[in-house]
Amino acid sequence: MDIRPILFPLSGLLAALALLMEIPALFDYFVHNSEWEAFQVSALITFFAAIALYIGRDRNMSHFSLRHGYLFTVSCWILLPLFAALPFFWSTQDMSYTDSVFETISGLTTTGATVMSGLEYMPPGILLWRGLLQWVGGIGIVVMAISIFPVLKTGGMQLFQLESSETAGKVFPRIQDVASGVFAIYSGLTVLCGLIYFIAGMSAFDAVVHAMTTLSTGGFSNTDMSFAAFPDKAIIWTGSLFMLLGSLPFSLMLYSLRRKSRWVLFADRQVQIYLLFLFFTCFFCATMFHIIMKNEDFFYSLTLATFNVISVVTTTGYAFEDYTLWGAFAPVLFFFLTFVGGCSGSTAGGIKMFRFHVMWLSFQKQFGHLIFPKGVFVQKINGKPLHNDISQSVLIYLTLLIFSFAVLATALSFTGLDMVTALSGAATSLSNVGPGLGEIIGPAGNFKTLPDSAKWILDIGMILGRLEYVTVVVLLQVSFWRF
Amino acid sequence: MDIRPILFPLSGLLAALALLMEIPALFDYFVHNSEWEAFQVSALITFFAAIALYIGRDRNMSHFSLRHGYLFTVSCWILLPLFAALPFFWSTQDMSYTDSVFETISGLTTTGATVMSGLEYMPPGILLWRGLLQWVGGIGIVVMAISIFPVLKTGGMQLFQLESSETAGKVFPRIQDVASGVFAIYSGLTVLCGLIYFIAGMSAFDAVVHAMTTLSTGGFSNTDMSFAAFPDKAIIWTGSLFMLLGSLPFSLMLYSLRRKSRWVLFADRQVQIYLLFLFFTCFFCATMFHIIMKNEDFFYSLTLATFNVISVVTTTGYAFEDYTLWGAFAPVLFFFLTFVGGCSGSTAGGIKMFRFHVMWLSFQKQFGHLIFPKGVFVQKINGKPLHNDISQSVLIYLTLLIFSFAVLATALSFTGLDMVTALSGAATSLSNVGPGLGEIIGPAGNFKTLPDSAKWILDIGMILGRLEYVTVVVLLQVSFWRF
Repeated sequence: MDIRPILFPLSGLLAALALLMEIPALFDYFVHNSEWEAFQVSALITFFAAIALYIGRDRNMSHFSLRHGYLFTVSCWILLPLFAALPFFWSTQDMSYTDSVFETISGLTTTGATVMSGLEYMPPGILLWRGLLQWVGGIGIVVMAISIFPVLKTGGMQLFQLESSETAGKVFPRIQDVASGVFAIYSGLTVLCGLIYFIAGMSAFDAVVHAMTTLSTGGFSNTDMSFAAFPDKAIIWTGSLFMLLGSLPFSLMLYSLRRKSRWVLFADRQVQIYLLFLFFTCFFCATMFHIIMKNEDFFYSLTLATFNVISVVTTTGYAFEDYTLWGAFAPVLFFFLTFVGGCSGSTAGGIKMFRFHVMWLSFQKQFGHLIFPKGVFVQKINGKPLHNDISQSVLIYLTLLIFSFAVLATALSFTGLDMVTALSGAATSLSNVGPGLGEIIGPAGNFKTLPDSAKWILDIGMILGRLEYVTVVVLLQVSFWRF
Repeated sequence: MDIRPILFPLSGLLAALALLMEIPALFDYFVHNSEWEAFQVSALITFFAAIALYIGRDRNMSHFSLRHGYLFTVSCWILLPLFAALPFFWSTQDMSYTDSVFETISGLTTTGATVMSGLEYMPPGILLWRGLLQWVGGIGIVVMAISIFPVLKTGGMQLFQLESSETAGKVFPRIQDVASGVFAIYSGLTVLCGLIYFIAGMSAFDAVVHAMTTLSTGGFSNTDMSFAAFPDKAIIWTGSLFMLLGSLPFSLMLYSLRRKSRWVLFADRQVQIYLLFLFFTCFFCATMFHIIMKNEDFFYSLTLATFNVISVVTTTGYAFEDYTLWGAFAPVLFFFLTFVGGCSGSTAGGIKMFRFHVMWLSFQKQFGHLIFPKGVFVQKINGKPLHNDISQSVLIYLTLLIFSFAVLATALSFTGLDMVTALSGAATSLSNVGPGLGEIIGPAGNFKTLPDSAKWILDIGMILGRLEYVTVVVLLQVSFWRF
């Protein structure tokens, strides 16, 4: 198989990454911080790599096949972090390359697990870089989910195919069209979120970085305390709202605006199920916390529960009080919530609502047949009949999730981690949530002390989860590489 | 819906249960143990209940529909334990009814989780009753898996339909035919296993009870130490072998014997995959244990690993040394092994090999399509093409398993259990393994100290897992009860 057709788009992305590094470089330069050199050197090296790929490219884009689509997608998520990690590595923070790559992958995949501590004392360029990584990671994920996954038929995402084009050659013009609209909404919401954070009392710098990591449902913060550093109800509710917005389908927001029909978003079955699920879970947790913690103020319980539930379900991973200490039930409930995820076409990770919807419809169909063997059952999903290949794709997704989870958790336990850390570490990386459970990697903890091998395993988990398994696993098939 | 057609078979089973109680009653009577009265009273009450159902029956068996099949199957597994628990409740052991029902359900479902301690000092009738419950539970499960599940299309079991009969009226004659052959094999193997145990050094009583709980992959033992009380290599390897035999498809053993073609059993894809999987897992664990425990003797490591892996994968649950203490990886690996299970049509629980096979085939088909969108991929399972409805059924099974696991574990955590106990408790009950992980319900522990509410939740889990979810959940559909 000839890999040259993917070199051109890859070189473009590397060049964009080099440009992105100029933002913290300039910022650090103007606040007279010596870190700017680390960014500048990294930008140069990344730019040279981009040129090298550009030289080796295949000029004829019609050679770009469906299989190149898979290869390109996976290559992006492996190659970009290796370069984007350089500023961390060369910063004054004395980070190993393993730690730098972990932090970068956690950023770009909008996972939000961190190996850094003492964030309050970090140079601002580094904090800005973490925020930027999550922000561009977020938009990258949305664009990928809207335009590449449906064509690659990743885990049932063909349901979201915008038009019935099967040739990969048509993918790129379409990406540009959708991406520009979604990008505008994403940017607009980020600015709005930052403004409200600022008005509610955050510093301008904190407001910018947190707005970027909120909308991307990433979860990096500028302090070790995460949102516990801003114990202001207005800030907490703003965070909850914009995390929620980040986990809704951006393409539907775009349609809502373009078609002048404001309710398209809420007419979507996936969004309805998602909001109902969140409503009940938040209310349920608020009631439980209220009883267990014997709070005076139910609104305070509701604030806590909503923020933490939304933070985990949207796979953001901001922490505000250690929920794992609230009764015996919280860790187990939050362990399962880790897997849930938001809507497809958003920045959220996890299994995602449309897959639960497909499972539910398959379930109804199956049970209809069991009870009335001669009945005819047609399941519809947003008005279109549910084809067998969709539920088949969801089955494959689930199977790969279960196996990845089992293999990752077992591999993590081989590095010496205890059972709760291994299980929740595998879950939190595959779902791109961020914090796990237990003393080491729980909401109050940090991934710094994990062995290097565990960090590389978690890197694999974050990329696997972000690319929804299928896209990666297809490359492991022998037949993929045969022509 | 008229439930009377199920009363006749139910009354027959209750009468058989009453008869079964006479075995420990007579045994205790002849060894001059006062417990015989508890068995005798329980037998009488059970017999009266059988008569009551017999009076209310519907004479015309042609009214027995497919839906009565579901209702009957679930009713059996709820009703029989309520009566079979009476001897425990009225015994001299001072057990609550909750504990008695838990022990009975654990017995009949061949789970093997126990609330009893000080087993060495128990009256022999009680120990015999525990063994008998598992033994009849085991044959009941095999018969159910061969004859009822395929007709009820439970979780892909229609793959194992013996003939293309869709009307439930034909089920019962067929059960008798298959059951008699399988019963003969099951009994023969039990006698053989007991003989070898006896020759290898067990007492006659221990040999009988352990043979019954080995072949049924149940795992009840006559001592708190389980198999650690028999640290003899011959006994350990005999246990491993007969647990393995109990987890192979009994119907294929029957064909092997009847068709005079001895290799039908090993020509089956499911059996091949199962044996390969066991071989590699045992060898892998033996190597790991050998390295971690710094054993001198590799054969000893292999003995330990084989016994414990087979005990968990066949869902027997005998303990021999606490494997959870062997390095950090063992608990996590064994947690996942808990879900695996043996072959369909055996006494083993869990997901079972044929479902992994179906997943693998669906996976291959899907990836074939992803790489070559215009290719035609026909997957065969044992020579027959794999229909979509099979993989659909397996998807439903997996979905229900995941949801049951999440709901059960969360419910258990609400009763105050810690995370490892809640997760492994839910897993071990749904898979009918027996022991869980952690200090409380681990191989060295006991279910006695759990709160009553947790025991009832585990009861539900054991029955759900044993009936492979679908059979139970279909009764929860509103449309099931409408005519």
